[in-house]
Amino acid sequence: MPPKIARFLETAELPSPCLVVDVDIVAHNWTELARSLPQARIFYAVKANPANEIVSRLARLGSCFDTASMGEIDLCLRHRVSPDRISFGNTIKKERDIASAFAKGVRLYAFDSEAELEKIARSAPGSKVYCRVLMECEGAEWPLSRKFGCEPEMAADLLVRARELGLDAYGVSFHVGSQQTDLTQYDKALVQASALFDALAERGIELKLVNMGGGFPSRYRTDVPSIEAYGAAIREALARRFGDRQPDVIVEPGRGIVGDAGVIQSEVVLVSEKGGNDQRRWVYLDVGKFHGLAETMDEAIKYRLLTPHDGGETAPVVLAGPTCDSADILYEKADYRLPTALKAGDKVCILATGAYTTTYSAVAFNGFPPLASICI
Amino acid sequence: MPPKIARFLETAELPSPCLVVDVDIVAHNWTELARSLPQARIFYAVKANPANEIVSRLARLGSCFDTASMGEIDLCLRHRVSPDRISFGNTIKKERDIASAFAKGVRLYAFDSEAELEKIARSAPGSKVYCRVLMECEGAEWPLSRKFGCEPEMAADLLVRARELGLDAYGVSFHVGSQQTDLTQYDKALVQASALFDALAERGIELKLVNMGGGFPSRYRTDVPSIEAYGAAIREALARRFGDRQPDVIVEPGRGIVGDAGVIQSEVVLVSEKGGNDQRRWVYLDVGKFHGLAETMDEAIKYRLLTPHDGGETAPVVLAGPTCDSADILYEKADYRLPTALKAGDKVCILATGAYTTTYSAVAFNGFPPLASICI
Repeated sequence: MPPKIARFLETAELPSPCLVVDVDIVAHNWTELARSLPQARIFYAVKANPANEIVSRLARLGSCFDTASMGEIDLCLRHRVSPDRISFGNTIKKERDIASAFAKGVRLYAFDSEAELEKIARSAPGSKVYCRVLMECEGAEWPLSRKFGCEPEMAADLLVRARELGLDAYGVSFHVGSQQTDLTQYDKALVQASALFDALAERGIELKLVNMGGGFPSRYRTDVPSIEAYGAAIREALARRFGDRQPDVIVEPGRGIVGDAGVIQSEVVLVSEKGGNDQRRWVYLDVGKFHGLAETMDEAIKYRLLTPHDGGETAPVVLAGPTCDSADILYEKADYRLPTALKAGDKVCILATGAYTTTYSAVAFNGFPPLASICI
Repeated sequence: MPPKIARFLETAELPSPCLVVDVDIVAHNWTELARSLPQARIFYAVKANPANEIVSRLARLGSCFDTASMGEIDLCLRHRVSPDRISFGNTIKKERDIASAFAKGVRLYAFDSEAELEKIARSAPGSKVYCRVLMECEGAEWPLSRKFGCEPEMAADLLVRARELGLDAYGVSFHVGSQQTDLTQYDKALVQASALFDALAERGIELKLVNMGGGFPSRYRTDVPSIEAYGAAIREALARRFGDRQPDVIVEPGRGIVGDAGVIQSEVVLVSEKGGNDQRRWVYLDVGKFHGLAETMDEAIKYRLLTPHDGGETAPVVLAGPTCDSADILYEKADYRLPTALKAGDKVCILATGAYTTTYSAVAFNGFPPLASICI
């Protein structure tokens, strides 16, 4: 538990549940990453947590911003981020949104298909574009699907096509998977990126950008490598694979910047048993899968919990949310144990919940309000 | 496609995506069910769709309301539903919410554990309570977990305990699973309910209520039995299992009332290919798992789609939402085919989306607004 948040929770009168984010930790994480990876421009992934205080603080630190929608672009512009510090990083954009972003000065766009390239060429002529490439990566806790990116051979053809369409074929992007803890995955991806640079050079196109996406983890139930270790692994991989012709480098951290800066304070609504041969207690919190903890889907992200009875006797539990939806269960298969003294009304803190919580929250499911949030 | 919605969509200027609900269909479905099951009181499950126009119309028809939270109770009261027509049907309630509901006149509460009973006895003394019982049911498309209910033996003990605590041990509830298409499941559940009535009678408690929950389906990709068939199956099962000592009966339909009354009009954002051996096109809509289509989780609910090119040549697709979340995929395993002529900008209508869509929608994920909704 971050000390400033612990002190704040001692006296604050908050709705329950509520996310509390320590913006100093956000700034610290950003600064550490910038120091560990001096050759990279950091594009904060706004979707991880678009709180005004976070965007404002990172803007003042000099961060760039990776955005998914006009809503996020307008948010950055409101915080006086100049458009040359904004990437429209979603490969799935309505053409009218591309036109709107272009009118506001955004000149950097992601794509992974010919249809998207044509939209960008029409509505953001001459812009820099980078192609997201599908890569086989392992070791990420929040899995990547094949939703984004195209096969490397197609990427090469599309970058050639980009130049034909009058765009600036700027480079490639990839993503090693969110909450990636295997540092060798960056090197494996850079091998493929470097091969694409070579293939395009043979076709007369000099790529300049490697966008390494995100993947930097938060600490949930298990330890993760430090930000410094990530920086070192990426620096070494870049040196190994690109030698003395180093590319422009972008990273797009979200979770790694804000995840461990946030704590959700929730309340136990009910502790019950089911009878029969089912020995486990069921612990129902006032926050669940539809109110901010969507990343417990398939029990993918396993948060750490703090209770007022920690240190006492524990027993296995099933942990669930407060709604009448049978799918609103947080952990049933993961081996969670909680103190036997836990009872309705107790506060339970869910650690490292600064990323991908508030904005995932349902707008009014079961008549409950969305997850409240405060930055300190 | 309901004709009134089709006519409305021809000329209406709507944001995209947008849910359109024909409230006349809602009223028709409610009236059909009331006619088919005259011995039951219908408690509309507000969580399925809490739009003001729906609650208002059903209130005027004389419906009762199954609620999950104070938010839903207050909504009903604002529409002049008297508190004796409201059930606080969530088995997971904060004690201060029970006290608040009691102060507003609500006298009917669900429970499935001793801890919840004690809260109700303290904060809603003398109220009618019914115990949700775990039953083994098969055939539902949206699966039920063990989250709600307790084993029948425990239910019997808890109902005895309810009387000791000064509550009115009113009856039992069960749920056969949402989108239940196997009509024999109601009979199987009533066998167990009737056994509980007998067991409690031996302990001096005369139960009166059987709350049969919901489960009535919408028509998605496959045909489902009619409302009349449901009514007939339940009537016969009640006659068979309770003979001439018929209980009070409650049903709690949500999906079966509003599901097929709604259509989401969405827009194709991108049609793309991935290259390599992957032959399927990817079709990205501007609505996805985090903007109203949460029930596509694990591809559970399979919606029907209409496009402007229906009737033309089709090919297999993967269907996905517009966000930068790799989990925002609607159908990858289910065998969906769409016209090869489909392209960005085309309107795609998603049928039978009146239930469990708007309120599941994320508040601002990826900077996109929540799903818009209009009742006609």
